[in-house]
Amino acid sequence: MHDMIEAGIIGGAGYTGLELLRLLLMHPQVRISVVTSRRYKGKRVSDVNPHLERFTELEYEDIDTREIADRSDVVFLAVPHGSAMDYVPELLNAGARVIDLSADYRLDRREYERIYKRRHKDTEHRNAVYGLTELHPEVADAALVANPGCYPTGAILAVAPIVRSGMAKRVVFDAKSGISGAGADPSEKSHFPNLAENIIPYELTAHRHVAEMRKELPQVKVCFTPHVIPSIRGILTTAHIFLAEGEERMTEQEIEELYRQFYDGKRFIRLRKGKDIPSLGAVRGTNFCDIGFEVEEDSDRIVIISAIDNLVKGGSGQAIQNMNVMFGLDEWQGLWHPGLVP
Amino acid sequence: MHDMIEAGIIGGAGYTGLELLRLLLMHPQVRISVVTSRRYKGKRVSDVNPHLERFTELEYEDIDTREIADRSDVVFLAVPHGSAMDYVPELLNAGARVIDLSADYRLDRREYERIYKRRHKDTEHRNAVYGLTELHPEVADAALVANPGCYPTGAILAVAPIVRSGMAKRVVFDAKSGISGAGADPSEKSHFPNLAENIIPYELTAHRHVAEMRKELPQVKVCFTPHVIPSIRGILTTAHIFLAEGEERMTEQEIEELYRQFYDGKRFIRLRKGKDIPSLGAVRGTNFCDIGFEVEEDSDRIVIISAIDNLVKGGSGQAIQNMNVMFGLDEWQGLWHPGLVP
Amino acid sequence: MHDMIEAGIIGGAGYTGLELLRLLLMHPQVRISVVTSRRYKGKRVSDVNPHLERFTELEYEDIDTREIADRSDVVFLAVPHGSAMDYVPELLNAGARVIDLSADYRLDRREYERIYKRRHKDTEHRNAVYGLTELHPEVADAALVANPGCYPTGAILAVAPIVRSGMAKRVVFDAKSGISGAGADPSEKSHFPNLAENIIPYELTAHRHVAEMRKELPQVKVCFTPHVIPSIRGILTTAHIFLAEGEERMTEQEIEELYRQFYDGKRFIRLRKGKDIPSLGAVRGTNFCDIGFEVEEDSDRIVIISAIDNLVKGGSGQAIQNMNVMFGLDEWQGLWHPGLVP
Amino acid sequence: MHDMIEAGIIGGAGYTGLELLRLLLMHPQVRISVVTSRRYKGKRVSDVNPHLERFTELEYEDIDTREIADRSDVVFLAVPHGSAMDYVPELLNAGARVIDLSADYRLDRREYERIYKRRHKDTEHRNAVYGLTELHPEVADAALVANPGCYPTGAILAVAPIVRSGMAKRVVFDAKSGISGAGADPSEKSHFPNLAENIIPYELTAHRHVAEMRKELPQVKVCFTPHVIPSIRGILTTAHIFLAEGEERMTEQEIEELYRQFYDGKRFIRLRKGKDIPSLGAVRGTNFCDIGFEVEEDSDRIVIISAIDNLVKGGSGQAIQNMNVMFGLDEWQGLWHPGLVP
Repeated sequence: MHDMIEAGIIGGAGYTGLELLRLLLMHPQVRISVVTSRRYKGKRVSDVNPHLERFTELEYEDIDTREIADRSDVVFLAVPHGSAMDYVPELLNAGARVIDLSADYRLDRREYERIYKRRHKDTEHRNAVYGLTELHPEVADAALVANPGCYPTGAILAVAPIVRSGMAKRVVFDAKSGISGAGADPSEKSHFPNLAENIIPYELTAHRHVAEMRKELPQVKVCFTPHVIPSIRGILTTAHIFLAEGEERMTEQEIEELYRQFYDGKRFIRLRKGKDIPSLGAVRGTNFCDIGFEVEEDSDRIVIISAIDNLVKGGSGQAIQNMNVMFGLDEWQGLWHPGLVP
Repeated sequence: MHDMIEAGIIGGAGYTGLELLRLLLMHPQVRISVVTSRRYKGKRVSDVNPHLERFTELEYEDIDTREIADRSDVVFLAVPHGSAMDYVPELLNAGARVIDLSADYRLDRREYERIYKRRHKDTEHRNAVYGLTELHPEVADAALVANPGCYPTGAILAVAPIVRSGMAKRVVFDAKSGISGAGADPSEKSHFPNLAENIIPYELTAHRHVAEMRKELPQVKVCFTPHVIPSIRGILTTAHIFLAEGEERMTEQEIEELYRQFYDGKRFIRLRKGKDIPSLGAVRGTNFCDIGFEVEEDSDRIVIISAIDNLVKGGSGQAIQNMNVMFGLDEWQGLWHPGLVP
Repeated sequence: MHDMIEAGIIGGAGYTGLELLRLLLMHPQVRISVVTSRRYKGKRVSDVNPHLERFTELEYEDIDTREIADRSDVVFLAVPHGSAMDYVPELLNAGARVIDLSADYRLDRREYERIYKRRHKDTEHRNAVYGLTELHPEVADAALVANPGCYPTGAILAVAPIVRSGMAKRVVFDAKSGISGAGADPSEKSHFPNLAENIIPYELTAHRHVAEMRKELPQVKVCFTPHVIPSIRGILTTAHIFLAEGEERMTEQEIEELYRQFYDGKRFIRLRKGKDIPSLGAVRGTNFCDIGFEVEEDSDRIVIISAIDNLVKGGSGQAIQNMNVMFGLDEWQGLWHPGLVP
Repeated sequence: MHDMIEAGIIGGAGYTGLELLRLLLMHPQVRISVVTSRRYKGKRVSDVNPHLERFTELEYEDIDTREIADRSDVVFLAVPHGSAMDYVPELLNAGARVIDLSADYRLDRREYERIYKRRHKDTEHRNAVYGLTELHPEVADAALVANPGCYPTGAILAVAPIVRSGMAKRVVFDAKSGISGAGADPSEKSHFPNLAENIIPYELTAHRHVAEMRKELPQVKVCFTPHVIPSIRGILTTAHIFLAEGEERMTEQEIEELYRQFYDGKRFIRLRKGKDIPSLGAVRGTNFCDIGFEVEEDSDRIVIISAIDNLVKGGSGQAIQNMNVMFGLDEWQGLWHPGLVP
């Protein structure tokens, strides 16, 4: 039996932090060593978040990065883009392993600075492993994992087997996300009368997450348009894949077989059979990525649908999956339960 | 001043029929001559539909087609695909003009039979005018108008100016519809626990409406994938347009100008400026089609967003717009009011 | 034929102001003389609110109260509680009639100061008529109308016939409101993830609106608990009425008859028959108040359900209804259209 | 360590059955011995319910009641009212313990026949223990447990401490339920366009569940009105409590203390402090009942709010809680996880 992993959470009051708490508090191999929040410093976590009442006596703290590292085997960074790089060097230097849920270490430095329009402060040019767990087994040995964006997770997993086979030339990702991806702070977009009875497309051609997709899918032209739907959780990605010139059309059964081999042994990838279509309900609250297929007749298009929970597989769940792999646990530990249906 | 137009409605208890009633009862130039329903024969329309209480004393009838024609200058067919063609010949022969909201006369005969998988019963091969009002001024003289499908309305209007200019080679329509498009009868898809907190893609590559889009947009390859969103009304269409080889990229301003000229004088088409994005709220309950643009940098893609109310511009409102044109009224008569915001 | 009424709107960017715009722009007897907004001064109303594009060329202004009065026959105050009383005296002195949609003149001075916890600044102790149009025909001659709160409108209309008959001793109003009642600014309560899949009770025993209810229903003990539901518009009020000792139970038919007489000639009150229950859909976007009844067997309880649109009959629509009465128009002018169903 | 409990589920395809599956499949002390469904006989449970893929290889069966009993230590009946009594006698005679989630054994025979308008077929007049676990510790020894209705669970737990203290004379329960309580089959009420942007009151004075409330709360007059809200899960109960003549008003702190003592050691009852109000989110997917209080000033009214998940504490979760108690496990086994927030 393993010793308990001591896990710290920096930024424990946003949705990402809350989801880490919800999952880690039930993880049989983890003890939360510290959870920070400037706003709620000194308050009981369960007073601020009544759904955690009876699950923890933790209080939010606001302490020195060094002390966080000292208390922790692994530290989750659930802070905004641009803030994570303030913590990473010191945490690593103090010997903690780090899982960064922000965008700060997902791209190479130049690309990051171009897209996020800020200088990268980490002068030692640390390398992170991109934590799309199914595609990057090297997270096992990583000191620093850059946890993927929510949209890239659903998008890349949806098409990797086809794209990496070299058959495709272009993918158009038309993604639909629950509003929790926009965070816990009220905004115009999250204002109920604006979102209910609506669907809000935004950053139609230039969402920052497209850079992660392109990095992981260099074989194809990638286009991406995100939308917010009137739902709390979930990302449904509609991937329109166009075959390269001269490629033969496959049947749904052949595609299913290709995917089955590609994702063999990956417990969080579930393939729908025939023309069955994934649903956000089946993955609600879980770390699964459900994938379905349809091939257009007399056409060069294949449509792939993937469904994930943006806060779990698209965020905190995948971070924990990475932690499991980093610490030699089964990847599904603390993450294994069915979706909340209905 | 015009005489009142005597308008009959066949199939007045479904959502399409109800929407015709809601709008025609307030139309200053129309008197409803008859409204039929087998299920509700003999019942007061306002007893079945409490929102119409105080607006009409009409009763649902179930009478002979010939009598409907005799009482009416124009007859709206709000019946399922496959049923409309049972009425059209007799109505036309009796001298009524007909606006068919079903799919029965939208395609040429062979295409219809292939796609709708039924024989067309109209032995005289009548021709209908496709009632996308902005693109088919010839509805003015039509005896029979085939009112467009809801998805084709939002899709075709979104891209016609670019596609007809010859600049594009392919369009991927990724459409998101409110559930009212599926009708008034409860179903698995409309069951609240299935649709809430979800978005349901369906007929991923082979929805029947794609045939209308291809007929109206012969210049490009057309792909189409529809989704149902947890909203009552509205269709938001995300059109991913790919430029033909060698075409120069336009700016958003140039596209806006192209559209402004193309839709000059069309009061129901509203163009958003710059990168402003249309919203379903702004068209809720109305006959407008709002359109916005974004050009992807360093790419051959343009994204166009259109927003319509599926039951109004995508159905009964456009039918009335066609009626207005057929009878020499201003096209906006009885259809001119702002969207229900919030 | 009347001359056009020149109507000014102070505070034209919140939901109340927007709803006044939506309705007054279509009113056949009204011209909007001025609409103010500090935030949007100088901007076209339709640039800020795309659903009004094509309906107005007005710009938001920020001008002197005196000038507003000079330009207007009537001024609508759509500003927060506590601000309206800054405008009322000058508007009245300059000869404009005023319809105040805030709470500032709904209660007598002492009650107002106790409940709203601020001093009333109007030193002349002006009297307003309480603008619950169906119960206060004296609005016809009023210079100043205090438009009722949204909750009191649905609550008082639901029970007035029974309460004023003296049969009841107590009413418990359990009200459920769409979130638009909380305004256009994002807040914790209006944050989609907080409200979706939830219902939020608040101010369980001490909502300020109860004072209006008690003033209009002095014959009974009034209790009130409001909730916000995951809907944009509408207030459904469940009124639990308890009969006074010794009162005989009535049948639903007798109650319906009592209501029919009480509301005779009131076009915006619609009574449901037998045990039919009102629905928010049937009143969506309209000025109607639909009312239904059920009598509990072997009990002293009657349950009355009323449904209104909080922004129309519960706000801007009733304000226009009052304007119509004040200026000798039919009370339904500019307000007569069926609910948006579905 | 206990042996695994062999648990059978009769009626495993409705929402109640699905929720039993979702929870029991993760229960560390339970093995599901059989799950029946006539409709899906022979199909893999996870083919019918994709969210259970990877969690079970079970197939739906349709077998003899006797065989179900032989294979099981305990049998859950998740069948409609009127059907459960067809199974209970044989199951008990064969030695299985039974937890009936229908209404068939909740009331005494005469009351049952009056309210459910059918004859009770169980000729041996078996007695069940009413399975409101916190109030009926005698479930520990029961052969037959009648699991409470969803509404009575939220209502009775909300007021039991006050009502049983003798202080109150009347309670008005105004309850708001997610639509999943109406089951997995599409209906008018669950049709998205009917429920979205609405709240549907029904059976205003005569819902059958009131009989359970009255049986458990004989000290007071009980009134009950249910509503369906546009949410999937959850019941929020607003309990308006009226004190008996001469009773002294308590403060919120005193009430909280009364509740704290009454529910001492009950892990699934969580009390909110001061005027904090429970939320459906905090109990989503869980077996908790969260309770909050507010005392009206200068009045005889206390308002108590309770929040439960109708399918868990209001159904299958409480059934499992009862099973735990019946088999000597900790009552929270297999039911201990935080709510899905956001």
